[in-house]
Parts: sequence; C-alpha cells; structure tokens
Amino acid sequence: MGFEPSARAQELIGRVEQFLRTEIEPVEAEVHAATKAAADPWQPQPAFRELQRKARAQGLWNLFLPPAEPGNEQYGEGLSNLDYAPIAELTGRSFLAPYVFNCNAPDTGNMEVLLRYGTPEQKKQWLEPLLDGAIRSAFCMTEPDVASSDATNMAATAVLDGDEVVVNGRKWWSTGVGHPDCELLIFMGLTDPEAHRYARHTMVLVPRDTPGVKVERLLPAMSRYDEPHGHGEISFTDVRVPAANILVGPGRAFEIAQGRLGPGRVHHCMRLIGLAEHALELALLRGTSRTAFGKPLVNLGGNRERIADARIAINQARLLVLQTAWLLDTQGLAGALSEVSQIKVAVPRMAQEVIDMAIQLHGGGGLSDDYPLAAAWTSARALRLADGPDEVHRGVVAKVELAKYQSTKGGAE
Amino acid sequence: MGFEPSARAQELIGRVEQFLRTEIEPVEAEVHAATKAAADPWQPQPAFRELQRKARAQGLWNLFLPPAEPGNEQYGEGLSNLDYAPIAELTGRSFLAPYVFNCNAPDTGNMEVLLRYGTPEQKKQWLEPLLDGAIRSAFCMTEPDVASSDATNMAATAVLDGDEVVVNGRKWWSTGVGHPDCELLIFMGLTDPEAHRYARHTMVLVPRDTPGVKVERLLPAMSRYDEPHGHGEISFTDVRVPAANILVGPGRAFEIAQGRLGPGRVHHCMRLIGLAEHALELALLRGTSRTAFGKPLVNLGGNRERIADARIAINQARLLVLQTAWLLDTQGLAGALSEVSQIKVAVPRMAQEVIDMAIQLHGGGGLSDDYPLAAAWTSARALRLADGPDEVHRGVVAKVELAKYQSTKGGAE
Amino acid sequence: MGFEPSARAQELIGRVEQFLRTEIEPVEAEVHAATKAAADPWQPQPAFRELQRKARAQGLWNLFLPPAEPGNEQYGEGLSNLDYAPIAELTGRSFLAPYVFNCNAPDTGNMEVLLRYGTPEQKKQWLEPLLDGAIRSAFCMTEPDVASSDATNMAATAVLDGDEVVVNGRKWWSTGVGHPDCELLIFMGLTDPEAHRYARHTMVLVPRDTPGVKVERLLPAMSRYDEPHGHGEISFTDVRVPAANILVGPGRAFEIAQGRLGPGRVHHCMRLIGLAEHALELALLRGTSRTAFGKPLVNLGGNRERIADARIAINQARLLVLQTAWLLDTQGLAGALSEVSQIKVAVPRMAQEVIDMAIQLHGGGGLSDDYPLAAAWTSARALRLADGPDEVHRGVVAKVELAKYQSTKGGAE
Amino acid sequence: MGFEPSARAQELIGRVEQFLRTEIEPVEAEVHAATKAAADPWQPQPAFRELQRKARAQGLWNLFLPPAEPGNEQYGEGLSNLDYAPIAELTGRSFLAPYVFNCNAPDTGNMEVLLRYGTPEQKKQWLEPLLDGAIRSAFCMTEPDVASSDATNMAATAVLDGDEVVVNGRKWWSTGVGHPDCELLIFMGLTDPEAHRYARHTMVLVPRDTPGVKVERLLPAMSRYDEPHGHGEISFTDVRVPAANILVGPGRAFEIAQGRLGPGRVHHCMRLIGLAEHALELALLRGTSRTAFGKPLVNLGGNRERIADARIAINQARLLVLQTAWLLDTQGLAGALSEVSQIKVAVPRMAQEVIDMAIQLHGGGGLSDDYPLAAAWTSARALRLADGPDEVHRGVVAKVELAKYQSTKGGAE
Repeated sequence: MGFEPSARAQELIGRVEQFLRTEIEPVEAEVHAATKAAADPWQPQPAFRELQRKARAQGLWNLFLPPAEPGNEQYGEGLSNLDYAPIAELTGRSFLAPYVFNCNAPDTGNMEVLLRYGTPEQKKQWLEPLLDGAIRSAFCMTEPDVASSDATNMAATAVLDGDEVVVNGRKWWSTGVGHPDCELLIFMGLTDPEAHRYARHTMVLVPRDTPGVKVERLLPAMSRYDEPHGHGEISFTDVRVPAANILVGPGRAFEIAQGRLGPGRVHHCMRLIGLAEHALELALLRGTSRTAFGKPLVNLGGNRERIADARIAINQARLLVLQTAWLLDTQGLAGALSEVSQIKVAVPRMAQEVIDMAIQLHGGGGLSDDYPLAAAWTSARALRLADGPDEVHRGVVAKVELAKYQSTKGGAE
Repeated sequence: MGFEPSARAQELIGRVEQFLRTEIEPVEAEVHAATKAAADPWQPQPAFRELQRKARAQGLWNLFLPPAEPGNEQYGEGLSNLDYAPIAELTGRSFLAPYVFNCNAPDTGNMEVLLRYGTPEQKKQWLEPLLDGAIRSAFCMTEPDVASSDATNMAATAVLDGDEVVVNGRKWWSTGVGHPDCELLIFMGLTDPEAHRYARHTMVLVPRDTPGVKVERLLPAMSRYDEPHGHGEISFTDVRVPAANILVGPGRAFEIAQGRLGPGRVHHCMRLIGLAEHALELALLRGTSRTAFGKPLVNLGGNRERIADARIAINQARLLVLQTAWLLDTQGLAGALSEVSQIKVAVPRMAQEVIDMAIQLHGGGGLSDDYPLAAAWTSARALRLADGPDEVHRGVVAKVELAKYQSTKGGAE
Repeated sequence: MGFEPSARAQELIGRVEQFLRTEIEPVEAEVHAATKAAADPWQPQPAFRELQRKARAQGLWNLFLPPAEPGNEQYGEGLSNLDYAPIAELTGRSFLAPYVFNCNAPDTGNMEVLLRYGTPEQKKQWLEPLLDGAIRSAFCMTEPDVASSDATNMAATAVLDGDEVVVNGRKWWSTGVGHPDCELLIFMGLTDPEAHRYARHTMVLVPRDTPGVKVERLLPAMSRYDEPHGHGEISFTDVRVPAANILVGPGRAFEIAQGRLGPGRVHHCMRLIGLAEHALELALLRGTSRTAFGKPLVNLGGNRERIADARIAINQARLLVLQTAWLLDTQGLAGALSEVSQIKVAVPRMAQEVIDMAIQLHGGGGLSDDYPLAAAWTSARALRLADGPDEVHRGVVAKVELAKYQSTKGGAE
Repeated sequence: MGFEPSARAQELIGRVEQFLRTEIEPVEAEVHAATKAAADPWQPQPAFRELQRKARAQGLWNLFLPPAEPGNEQYGEGLSNLDYAPIAELTGRSFLAPYVFNCNAPDTGNMEVLLRYGTPEQKKQWLEPLLDGAIRSAFCMTEPDVASSDATNMAATAVLDGDEVVVNGRKWWSTGVGHPDCELLIFMGLTDPEAHRYARHTMVLVPRDTPGVKVERLLPAMSRYDEPHGHGEISFTDVRVPAANILVGPGRAFEIAQGRLGPGRVHHCMRLIGLAEHALELALLRGTSRTAFGKPLVNLGGNRERIADARIAINQARLLVLQTAWLLDTQGLAGALSEVSQIKVAVPRMAQEVIDMAIQLHGGGGLSDDYPLAAAWTSARALRLADGPDEVHRGVVAKVELAKYQSTKGGAE
C-alpha cells in the first residue's frame, strides 16, 4: 500500500486484527442471537460488556481519537486519519466491533464535538463518561417533517430564555437512543430565523432524562431495529436546560456540524470497506464450497467476473478513502471538501453492490439472518442517506469542480 | 395498450381498481400496524377477514384461475394470462390485495397444480377448501444444504413403502407456513436416484399436522418475517402419508414443477409492475410536495431524469410481461420459455431500482415502515432468488438464443 | 407478437425480407468497399442505383408513407406506424436498405412535411421528384454556435423582404447534403424575435443551387463521413428565395417541426431495433464459431449472460417502439408524446450497448470495418444526439409524468 | 497525493507540463489538420519533427525508461513507475505528446524488450536508433484468424532452419507499421507445437524490408486510421532472417511478452487518466459556456451529478493506477499481477464513460473532429481489447482472488 500506516498504527492494527479473530468472531453470532431471543432486546448482552472490558484492558479503546491538541492532552494521544483508517476498516467487518472498542457512531462524533468545542465543565460532565463507555449519546438533527438534505430547513427550536434555553420540536433517526445507557442528546435547533442561514441554529446538550423529552418510537431501517442501539423519533416539548449547555454559543451549530461530519463520514466509509471486504470473502467461501450443475458456483456463468469486479471496486474505494484521510491529515477539512463528499457517494454504493452480489451467491441464505449479509446491505443502503443523500454530496463535488473554472463565476453557481 | 384485455376483463379490472381504492387502501396501513402491534402477529387481523368476505361477495375471488379445461368446469371459468395481467398488476400495488382476492402465492400455484394434476379425491380434499379460502398451503422445494439453483441437487427423500410414502429431509423458504390456516404442504423429494435426472423426484401432498412435520423456525427475508404468512424452515422426519397423496405418480415432480412455475412466475412479475408503479407514484408525490434549497425535490439535480428513467423502465417491463402472457395464452409454456425467463430477470431488477430511487427521494422515511417502500424493495429483491436466481434464467434465455444457430449444435451447449 | 401487423403489411414484410436476403445482403459489403475505394466516394455506386430500380419495380418503394389523407390520395396509400414498424426494423439491419427502398432519413421526414404542409405547387416541384428518388434533400435546423438542445436558441434568420425571403446563418449536421442529387434544403430560421418563442421561426424551401448557399465542409460523425450522403456544415449568405417557398406561413416552423419529428424519431428507433438484432446475430455467430481456452467463446465467463441481457433489452425496446407506433396510430402525436421521447432515450442506448457487446466478442475485428459493427455503434451513438439529446427527451417524459399530479401545478414546472 | 513523486520526477513533471502548454497545445490542432489535409497523411508533419527536436533538446525524451540495471547504464537512468505515472498522465492529454517525447506505444514496449532481453548486437542495431527516434517499430502478435484473447491460439510460425529462422503467417493490429520510419517488426510465432503451451513460441526481430513481408492493408479502429502511425495487417511469406535475430532463444516468447506487457499496460492506463481528465475539463468548459433554456448547460438536469461522478471515477482510477505502479516498483510484476489486470479493466471503461459524457455535453460537436473527444473515445474503447479483452483480465483478477482460499485448490480452478 502506498499509504503506509505509522509504526504505532501497524502495531495496533495487528492487535485489533488478533482481537477480532480470537475474541469477537467466535462469539459474534451468539451475541446477536441472544439479543434477538432476549425478552428485552434493548439490553446489551453480558458477553458484549465482557468484550468491552477486555478490549479496554488491552488498550484497544477510543482509537478513533484524533491527535492531541493543546489543552486536550489529558484525553489521550490519538491517531491520524490515515493511521486510523485500517483499524476502522477492520472493525467494520463486524457489527459488534465498533462498540467493543468504543469507536462507534454516533458516540465518536459526539465525543469529537465535545473534545473540540466543549467547555471544561461540559467535558467533565459528558466527555469523560463517554470516553469511559459509562454512558451513550445520540445526535438529534434530522427531522421528520422537512427535507433534511437541506439542513437549513430544520424547524425545531432552541430559544434562549434568561439563563435557560428552551427546546421544542421533533427529531428522528437519532441513532443510539434506544440504548439504556444513552444519557446525552446533542440537539440542533433554530434560534434566530433572521440571522444568516448558516448562523441561525444552536447546538444544545440535552440530558435524556430532562422533562419534555420523549422517545416516541424506535424506527426500523429497512426493517431492522438495530437493537440494543436503535434509531429513535424523539419529541421535545418545552424542554429547558441551562444556557451553559449550549455548545460554543448561540447560532454556532452549523460551524460545529461541519467540523463533526467530516471525520465522521470518513469513519463510516472506512468501516464500509471492511464490510464489503467481508462480504467478498463470504462470496468466495460460498462460491468455492457450493456446487450446482456439477461445478463450484464460482465457475458458473459470470460469477468470476462479478468477483473480479467486486475486488476492483473495493480496491478503488479503499484508495479513495485513504487519499481522503491523508488529505484531512495534511490539509484539514477545507482541503478535503470534495474528497469527503466523493467517498460518501462512492463507498456506500460500492458496498451495496458488492454485498448484493454476495447475497445472490448465497441464495435464500443470503436473504436470511444466517449470514451477516442482509444486515450489511441495510447498513450500506442507509448510509446513502444517513449523512445527507448522495445527491447532495454529488452537488458538493460538482461545485468544487466548477470552482476551478473562471467562467462559472458568472453563471453556473 | 396494444395488448387489449377482453370486455369481461375490462369490467373486472374496473371493479378491482374500485375495490382497491375504496376498501383496501383506506385500511391497509392500519391492518399492517395492527399485525405488528398484536401479541401474536401470526394471527390474521379481523379487518382482513372482513375484506376477504367482501371481495368474495363481489365475485372478486380466485381471478387467477386459468380458463376452464374439460373436467375442471366446476372450478370456474378463469381468465387468460393476458386478461389476468392488469388485474394482478393492480393487486401488486398492495401487500394485502393478493390475499384479499385469494390470488396470492404460493396458494395460486398450488391450486393450479391441484387443478391440473390432482385426482378428483385430491381436488375435493385440498383444492376446494383452498378455493374457498378456508385453508392455506405451502410449497416445500428449496433446501438449506444444497444449491437449489440446480433443482436436481434436491436431497430430501420421498420413498415408497407399501401403500405409503415416507418423507424425510429439510426444506426452507416454504412461504405461507407461518399462517394458522396452513394445512397443506406440497413436498418435493428424491425417490429414485438411478432414474434420469428429471425423473428422480416425486411430489407429495403432506398434511401439515402429519407426525414428523416440524416448522423449525420462521425465516426473515431481508429482516422481514412477513407475518402472518411467513417463510418457514421445516424438518420432515419419517413422515408417512398414503401413496394416494402422490401427485400424478412417482418421479413426475419436475414435470409438474415446470407446469407450475411458468404462470406463477408471470404472476409475480405482473404484481411487481404494480408495485413499481406504486413506488413511482410515491416518488412523484414526495418529489412535488417536499421542498429543499427552495425548490420541490423533483426539480433538484437529476431527479427528473430518474423519474423519466423509472417510467421508461416500468413501461418496457410491463410490455414484456404482457407479451409473455400473450405467448403463454397462444403458444403455451413451450412457446414462451425464453420470455418467462426474460421477465424473471428483467422485472425484479427493474422494480428493485425504481423502488430504490423512490426510497432515496423519501430520505429517512423511505427506510422506515412509514411508507411501503422498504417492504416493496425486499419483495423485489427476494424475487431475484425466489423462483431461481437471475443467473439461471439468463442461462435459459441464452440457451434458447443459441439454439437458433446451427453451429452451436456441435460445441456450445 | 401481440402487436399484429395487418395482412397487407405481413405480405410486404415477407417481400422486404426476401429482397434483403437475396438482393441486398449479397452485395452490400461490395458496395461499401467500392464507395470507399472510389476516386470520388460521394458518387453513389451503380450497383446501388440498380438495387433501387429493382426495389421500385417490385413495389418496395416509399413504404414509409402514412395512410392517405384527403387531397393526398395521389401520392399513394401508406401504412400505419404499427404496420411500417417491422418493415423499418428489417431495413435497419442494413445501411443500404433504407436508401434502396427510398425510406431513408432525412428524405422521409422531408417528404412527410411536404405531403402534409406543402402547397400543390411545392408538392409538384419537390415532393414528386423526392418520391421518385430523382432528387435528395437535407434538413437545416441545428447550428454550430448555439445549444440546439433548446431549439429556440436558433439564430439563423429568414427575413421577409417584399415577396422574397432572405436567409442568413450557419447550419450543421445537415445530413444528406453531400449527395450529388441533393437539390432541396429545408431551412429553419428566425423571422420575428418579438413573437411567442414558438412562433418566431419560419421554414423555407431553399434550392441547393441558390446563390449564397455554400457547403463549407462535410463533418465526420465519430470519424465516419457516411459517404455518399454525408453531414454538412452550410453557410447561407443573403440567400433569396420567393416567399412562396415558405412552408405554411411565417412563424409556423415549430408547429411543422413538431409534426415532422414524431414519426421520424419512431423510424430511427424502428431501424435501430433491426440494427441491434443484427449485432446480436453477429455476436452469436462469432461466439459459437470462435474458440479460446478450448471452448467456444460463448461458453466463456459471462458471455452467455451478456447474450441473454441483449435479447431481453432488444425485446423490451421493440415492444416499446411498437407500443409507441400503436399510440401514434390510434391517438396521434399528442397521445404518444411521452412514449416518443421514451423510445428516443431507451432505444439508442440499448442499441449502443448491444453493439458494444458484439464488438467485444469480435475482438480487433469488431473495431475494424470488416464487420458492420463499428458503423452500427456510431449510428446508435449519434442518435443519442441527433433528434435532441437524451436529456431533453427525459425532460419531456418527466414533464408528462408530473402533469398527472395536481400538486405540481403550483411549483414543479 | 499520498503517492508522492520523487524530487527528480517533480521537476520533470513541471517541465513536461510547461512544454505541453507552451509548445504542443498551441499547435496540436494544426498538426492534426495538416495531416488530414495532406496528399499523403502517412508522412509525419514537419511541425511534429520540430517538436520532437525541441523536446529532446530539453531532455524531455525517453522518460519512460526504467531505472538502470547492471549492463544497461549506458541507455540512461530512468524513472520508477510511480515517478513516471504523472508524466505519462500528462502526455495522455494529447495525441501528439507521447510521440513528441519518444514515449509512445508500441515503441516503448519494444524498446523495453530490447533493453531487457536484447544481445549487445541487437541493442546496437535496433535499440539505439529507436531511443534516438531515428526509426519506429511494430509488434506483431495478434492474428486475424484465431481468438487472440487466448494467446496460445497463435498460428503463425517461426521455424528454425539452420542458422536462419523462417517466418510465415498473418498478423494484424500491428500498430505503427504505417509510419514511413517503421523499420523493425517484433514477430511472435509458433516454433514447437509439442512443447509446453507457454514454451512453444519464439520472438523474432524482423526488419520490415525483409523479402516476404507485406503490409496488406491499414485497418481503421472505430473508423480512424490514426495516420501517420496506423494499424497494419501484415503477411509474412517465407520470411528468412538470421537466427541471431531471435530474442533470448526459441520458445521464450511468452516469457518475454509477460515482462513486456506489465509496464506497457500501466503506461496505457496512465495516459488514459490524462485523457479522461482532459475530457472532463472540456465538459466543464462547455457546460459553463453554453446556454440552453436560460441556464448554463451544467445547471440543467443531471449534468452536475454526471460531472461529480466523472470526478469520482477519475480519482479512483488514478489511485488504482498509482497503487499498481507502486506495487510494480516495490514487488515486481508478480506482486502486481492482479492490480495490472484490475486497471486494465477499470481504466479504459472509466475513460470511455467520462468521454461519452463529455461528448454528450458537446452535442453534435462532440461527435465531430472539432474536439478531440471522438478520437479519445476510440482510444479508450480500443484499449478494452488491445492488450487482451476485459474478460481475460477479469479472469486473472478472479484467479488471484480465489487462490487466497484453500478450498479452491480442489475444484474451482
């Protein structure tokens, strides 16, 4: 690989891989089955808690953290994006692993927000227990009644009232809110409708148990509830929290969201590479072990061509993710604006297609939950919407491209 | 439309459409919600039973039946495939409708088998209550341990023992077996491993309550259990039924399956046209009623192009289905061999893509169960495997194509 | 086929097919080679003139003509679109055939314009020799300096000056103007910039030898000059013709163009079906007669799947073309607005892909002129632009679709 | 870019870019027009000879050469593949540039063969004048009468007869043979039909003026003759050359071909990245400068999305090419076997699609030779066959993938 991880990362990659093979893979199917069979599937399994404990004991914990910045040294020395990429890819092979290593969305993004934008008090109260895995969090941005592809549509409100802020509105697809440990909601709402469109909204830290907060229901994504984490629809009715719970300041939500979403998207894409790689492995195992018409499946019709296409697609996508990570590391989000959107378009689509191919090779089994393929497909499909629809990301890529041409200044914006 | 339905069909189409709009559509979401909320989702809802009663009272019942053949007149005068196509398309817009009109898979295929191949006694015992809607049935062909794309792989056995037949083995994806009214299993198993590969298997009528029959579990298809019908994995352990329960005779299963699958596939494809049409309508409604960046969604980016592409794809697929129906009517299955496989490849893929586009336009809502899109997608995806994988059907189309060329006789088989 | 041609058409189809097999196919390669080898490739070959004579003698002449309308009976009783479709498909298998039968673009469209919109004098002077094959014509609409996808951009002028009309401007892609018999140019230009945008332009009959008309150059389309017909760039400098040469009246050009383009597009698409069918035949012949790695090519990798996909794509496209023809026959252009655009999008793309597949199976030979595939590909590719780009046609399809929804009246236009 | 070129390469990249902008781009269209207008288009233009002279004077010459190996130092110190990649990409933007810098196929591949496998005498006689640009060469491998996708099909013969070797057979797609300076043909033919299938063939240096060598014709590729280089069909009739003209030894042809094709393929792919990049630039220029329906083209329908998709596709392809170059540099051909085939599948297809999009945005102009797009498309299309068809390369990728799985050892080869 031309994008070489550092020696420290190399060592961590080896240990994460080892942990996956020896600790997680042998029990993963059981943990999912136990969740499914449980009277209350929204309770994390003890076996899962045990895996977390082990991972933490081995220092395989919070690896997502960015390099330390002045004032944040006490929260640990993290990895560059390029160093974290192969680790995230490995964890993406499994649905448990990101949680086991405390590297799962949306907590990672929320922790990064707190790390970068939180006051010392906010960090103490929320960041530390999140880094400890003692609590979980959700991010409340998308709304059911407006097109969230245009975030300025957001209609929920966060109004200052003395030294309190009053929160009202309805959010959905707040991932993680089904978890019993979820104690923090990061809420984004309209504060000043008269301000510049990117300065109208405020981000507020809302404890989940604040009066007026209600999880109306948990939403299935392509029929999956993703227990014990879940995706919630939440109503906020005259929810009052201290103004000290505002992040950075009123009207600063977009600025924070921008900073949050860049690396977050990269993490999703890194993990999807691992998921697609895993699906290709399953396809190869199936294709070489099952027989029809007197031949291994892989030797029938266009199956080998499809396997080749999958390999090519995965490799191209991985390289684009690494390139994006490298740009983020060396030039910051401003220098990776187009690439962050590029991977958001390319990677979930690639993963969806590779997984669909693997499902097809598995026949009916591929549709069932006997293999992780149905869940994998759903995960890839959802990501074509989850951080904004493909179409919006394509728009960003085109805009950057057009900006290179003088003549567009006049008319093509 | 160049493929004109008969006057009788025209009248029925109008009435089915009316019934859909006035009886089914207003309650469909409620029925699904009630099923989901029920303590036992495997019990059909009373509202559904009431819809069936109404449909039957209006003569909108068993419309799938083929034209009467000598000896079958008492079971009603059915429609040609071309006449049934627009009716099936209409019912495909809804997940309830096929059941309401007693026109759902796999019962339709099973009834056709009994109608065409059953003895008078078999018809009396099984066909009549199925036509009445009093019982339900399942078809037990696919097996978990072999590649069912090559049906000759089938390993379950149906062995003659005196005037009994002994059935052993494991089947899965037996759709409908979750339903409390399911009383009949049509089982296909290996009888004579030494016979010609298409004369080894036998089809047997197995009452569901026969000792040794066990529904091991119900399978999710892309995470959906499709209650109250379901898809079962069933073990058969020394299951004994009278030899009189054999259909046609030992070793005749492939012959029957061939006859069964032709029209059955066409019905699935007809319904998928309606499903895709419905998804396009939802996309248009969403696209014209939601606003982002100051415009209706439909006016953003490539959305109009995608809508045009969906319209073109649906129209082409519908015409191919009608052409296939017309060929089946005028030339029988032998004259429609390639076309039956063509629609099996083309229609589910088309539907899957149209529905995916509609999901994308609905944002997060499209992934949830607030719209029928997630269920619709799953239905289309599953059909790329359910009657044999796309790849097998492509093989049939290519084989017919090659048979036109002399030179292939030598080498290209 | 569900779309049955009439008895008269059936008979003609048989004779056209016979003529193709016995008269055209045996000499076609020679005629092209002779054109290419000729000192002046822009002279039609004598063998071609002889084929025309024979076709005419057998009544296989001007079959494109529409059914006779009052006042036009003397120009012959033509076929419905549905009846003409299989004939046009047959002629599309060959590059010579449309010319041999006097059924080639753009003369067919030009003859239809004169038939429908010409005065008796215009018909006598231009239509009759065109129907005789004595002269050829070109259509001068597209311009090099503006985006012709939006026809209202057209900048060339046709200004009335007493009882003359003065024509100025530059046109390109005027097909057929390279032919030595080309004597008539149908020119479209701006007359009244203040009028409604669809009432500004006028269509004028300009004899090619009028002073001020100059063929600046002949244009290659994907490197082919298509001798002896060609595609010209033509300058018009103060070209004066009598006002009697105006078609219908000043400002009526769009109205005429609309009527002209509907069937014209259908003809192109009908022929492309034949071209794609021919390419698939060539692919099958090659695939079954060449051997690599010990097998006929058709049995390698995904080749059979590609052949199946081609068959499915051709069949779907043909049915959509027939449906469009049937709609044009029964409901006129207004009733087929969307479908005419649908086939324009779907059919050239389908043909391009089928031909590309056939090229690939032919290896280097497929790229050469030893097979008609390179020419066929170019023909399909050019048609994605020739009657307006795909994107414009998709826009029409979407517009018709949206018009079905009330809510679009407000905003989505 | 994560794949950083060396300082030396950086400097060369800058100078090549400068040369392209100031020397080649301003005259390129003229040179092509002059070739086309010439009485003999097979004579290189004086302006082209002058460009070569200038490039050589500036040291921008033979940059394709690999790093020096022991014994080859006198032929110059070349660049690694990773360092050459951005230079080749730049030259790929132009059809002249590769020739101007003496870095064009097939001479580069032929020079590499001589450099690596030639005797000192062979180098002196052929390599030195090739490196000087004094002569040109062709590679004679593909044959018209067999499927060359399977190179062991090759039927032309190279038979030893005393101290001579006698060459017979017919080759085609021998690129460059139309050029008046072409003096060397590297011929590959069957020597020992009884040997192992990869040890049957011999590579022979055949002076073009040897009696019995006849260029039968020059072949158009998608209608282009690519003057003054061309693609020839050549017959060899009892052509006798000294046995000293054999490369390496009898039966060693496949071994040499393997070594030749690796980097050669990479060069083609590197150049295609530049070609696609150029097409995207043209699309952006057109899209922002042309107006239809009151907007710049780029703001119509899905055009921005297509531009974004093109950017994403180019970036992914470039990264895969660089990764392949890096693997070749660090692990040799054996370590890049799959990747060399991966780029051969992915890059021409990507380029073909990007160029097609650019053509579509250019309307009729895109089909003409007014823009380099028609030539660019042809170049990309031809490369899907030129070094072996996509399908064969997919086979290699799948084979490498399957080799990772133990279970394939038994059956899936």
